[in-house]
Amino acid sequence: MNPKDDAGGDDREEMKRRAGESAAALVDDGDTVGLGTGSTAAYAIRALGERVDAGLGIRGVPTSHGARRLAVEEGVPLVSLDEATPDVAIDGADAFDGALNLVKGGGAAHAREKVVASASDRVVIVADETKRRDELDLPVPLEILDFAVAHVRERVESLGGELALRESGGKDGPVVSDNGNIVADAAFTEYDATSLAEALDGTTGVVEHGLFVDTADEVHVGRGDGVEVLR
Amino acid sequence: MNPKDDAGGDDREEMKRRAGESAAALVDDGDTVGLGTGSTAAYAIRALGERVDAGLGIRGVPTSHGARRLAVEEGVPLVSLDEATPDVAIDGADAFDGALNLVKGGGAAHAREKVVASASDRVVIVADETKRRDELDLPVPLEILDFAVAHVRERVESLGGELALRESGGKDGPVVSDNGNIVADAAFTEYDATSLAEALDGTTGVVEHGLFVDTADEVHVGRGDGVEVLR
Repeated sequence: MNPKDDAGGDDREEMKRRAGESAAALVDDGDTVGLGTGSTAAYAIRALGERVDAGLGIRGVPTSHGARRLAVEEGVPLVSLDEATPDVAIDGADAFDGALNLVKGGGAAHAREKVVASASDRVVIVADETKRRDELDLPVPLEILDFAVAHVRERVESLGGELALRESGGKDGPVVSDNGNIVADAAFTEYDATSLAEALDGTTGVVEHGLFVDTADEVHVGRGDGVEVLR
Repeated sequence: MNPKDDAGGDDREEMKRRAGESAAALVDDGDTVGLGTGSTAAYAIRALGERVDAGLGIRGVPTSHGARRLAVEEGVPLVSLDEATPDVAIDGADAFDGALNLVKGGGAAHAREKVVASASDRVVIVADETKRRDELDLPVPLEILDFAVAHVRERVESLGGELALRESGGKDGPVVSDNGNIVADAAFTEYDATSLAEALDGTTGVVEHGLFVDTADEVHVGRGDGVEVLR
């Protein structure tokens, strides 16, 4: 192992921890909280668990199997979206820009994450500063009806992109989401997030895509020297 | 049984048969054909089966378990969307207007039907004349991620509508689609199909809705005295 990589990894974990804890500190007693998926959101869930241990009364709405399992381990009481609307959702992002638009879905949880974000009064994103982009350019994660994969591939190509099914570990073939659909990534050399999001919203067979436009209210950016909050 | 209803029923079956056979006559040797779901599309599948018996070489892309089973019974060879793009799709509708906009999904197959229609070069709708509306006003069928039902209900209500899960026969609780999602109907006192379709396209958790706007190329309307073709 390269000791420099190791040091960089530790620094980055510190940034993630700072971002997660900063967001968890916003939660008030009595809140219902959307619980995001991924390594940075996990720091927020752990911080919430500590606050619950100290007496905070909250209920969490998990966005994935992983978030649910961690919340149970950390002692955060759970509730479903059928029973409660989140006051605040705390979630990570794979990339964010200055307009607070996001690319999400590296963990293939973007459909449930977007449902929870859409249902929440306030959406707080947590990320380390390496996720910041002048222009969003990451491949866009898609959740697709199995029946529609070939059609969606054609549509993505007609939009100038290229579709790759996401290879799964632990099973042969592509990743299947927690909702039972196929996960793929649509790569474009460049794109405008707003117009691409509209095109993907209107693409039949796309259950949900990973562009979150006009969704985040704030981004807590973990840096080497603290946390910067973008609004 | 009321003999008048019976007579009316027979007349209506005749109208459906005329519409289905009119569309089936459009299919050329070598075509790949989208096979719709429902009682009127079934007449088209049966007519195609007779033409296959007589030597027509086609392949069908079924839009549901029901359409697949009927096609197998009728001897229509099948192919998946992964292998071929339909030259023409033949499908029914629960309602159509003068602009050829449609409400579909009474058979809960609207997601796969819309994928097949979107992928097809030409979309031919078959319906009896009782399905014609000056203004579309039928409840709009929705296919929804189970996780998102409460959120979608709230969104439908904010659009002025009311959401009802569709009760299933043969199982307790709501209908589950061939894709494994929840089926519901969103009722509005009146709506503009184009703007409601856009709003539902942008509603997180809605896998697909039953408004087909700018999709049909022609509607073959079965009437008491023949078939009227709207383009």
